[in-house]
Amino acid sequence: MTEGVPLVIPEVNPHHMAHCKIGKGTIIANPNCSTIIALMAVTPLHKLATVKRMIVSTYQASSGAGASAMEELWEQTRDVVNGKPAAPKIFPVQYAFNLFSHNSDMDLDSGYNEEELKMVKETAKIWDTKDVKITATCIRVPVMRAHAESINLEFEKDITVQEANAALAGFPGVSVIDDRVNNRHPTPLDATNKEDVFVGRVRQDISQASKRGLDLFVCGDQIKKGAALNAVQVAEQLVKNSA
Amino acid sequence: MTEGVPLVIPEVNPHHMAHCKIGKGTIIANPNCSTIIALMAVTPLHKLATVKRMIVSTYQASSGAGASAMEELWEQTRDVVNGKPAAPKIFPVQYAFNLFSHNSDMDLDSGYNEEELKMVKETAKIWDTKDVKITATCIRVPVMRAHAESINLEFEKDITVQEANAALAGFPGVSVIDDRVNNRHPTPLDATNKEDVFVGRVRQDISQASKRGLDLFVCGDQIKKGAALNAVQVAEQLVKNSA
Repeated sequence: MTEGVPLVIPEVNPHHMAHCKIGKGTIIANPNCSTIIALMAVTPLHKLATVKRMIVSTYQASSGAGASAMEELWEQTRDVVNGKPAAPKIFPVQYAFNLFSHNSDMDLDSGYNEEELKMVKETAKIWDTKDVKITATCIRVPVMRAHAESINLEFEKDITVQEANAALAGFPGVSVIDDRVNNRHPTPLDATNKEDVFVGRVRQDISQASKRGLDLFVCGDQIKKGAALNAVQVAEQLVKNSA
Repeated sequence: MTEGVPLVIPEVNPHHMAHCKIGKGTIIANPNCSTIIALMAVTPLHKLATVKRMIVSTYQASSGAGASAMEELWEQTRDVVNGKPAAPKIFPVQYAFNLFSHNSDMDLDSGYNEEELKMVKETAKIWDTKDVKITATCIRVPVMRAHAESINLEFEKDITVQEANAALAGFPGVSVIDDRVNNRHPTPLDATNKEDVFVGRVRQDISQASKRGLDLFVCGDQIKKGAALNAVQVAEQLVKNSA
């Protein structure tokens, strides 16, 4: 951590990293996987109409807890479909055909787990604002390696679905799958082993006045965009900035 | 539909049904499964502090789409763990190790599906109010028969976690599993084949001012509380009222 490089270099979008240059001993903090997957979709909307409040519920894959958690899900599922009891090892409850509150440590006073608090803290850092209000509920689901997130947004200004979809379609690293006629929207398997974050179910939130709210659903590969790919993209951009 | 029995008799809590009596040709409408499971947890809190706005994200089991959907999930999963490709029949995308936007019909104008709109409309009927604002995102997850829901609530008055937990613990048909120290909270398997709705992760929403908000996580058996059991409970209460 030297020569003025901030600890958190959050986005791979070049115009957000113009001030970041690589130096001797530079340490890069890659953002949390749920946070970066959510913000890939929400950042272009934030630029348009400024997010005031964000409510996120996650559907997180086994891969976020490592290779052994992926193995746990796979082996338990194989046992259960073969009529054998599931044998939990890493997680305290059965993972096959089940879901549970995220396994990160819990802040006993607030009742939020670390994954949820990262969403709150890292979003504020990435957007460089103290004005955004965030709450999250992080849940581990029986999916191998791509996270999904249901996101409710409240904006400072009106924003239409058309404006939102145009901004999403034009944002590097985002793909829109939003086919209302055929009810075809992002799934974790769409995102698996892909570099983009997939966004759909974009609609005007009917619980908010005027056009101040949107609901959306996003899926992103936890291993690629949530971790390794993002680190490589951040490093590439830094090298470019420092050339 | 005769003799003044309202079409929707939503709750099995006796004091909500005192006005309902059985008559010749009475037709009872059993509420939607996601709605009744959410409202079992939210109603005691609504009585305490009046819900202004509710934001729900569901994690819905295969059983809600019928026995053939349960079979589809089971067979696809068995194929996938045995190295065979999944063969989608009922749903357009793979169900094994995947999740997707709820399969009910979509309102093309609003982008909400019917399951989500039921949550909005039936809650207003059940609580007999036009003042509650609701949005929902309904997702089908690879779980056999119990639904889970992440619920964010905004109240008219302050409500503490202690008050909420006391109200939940005292409400018939609700069980609280909320162990922050051991991170043990409701899972679909806890609720499977049980009559109660299970509630946990009850915490003060840090995105709202003062103590106006709560987040919680609920699980309920789709077949029991979500359908058959609730119908029996409604009928029993009607018979009792009419004796």
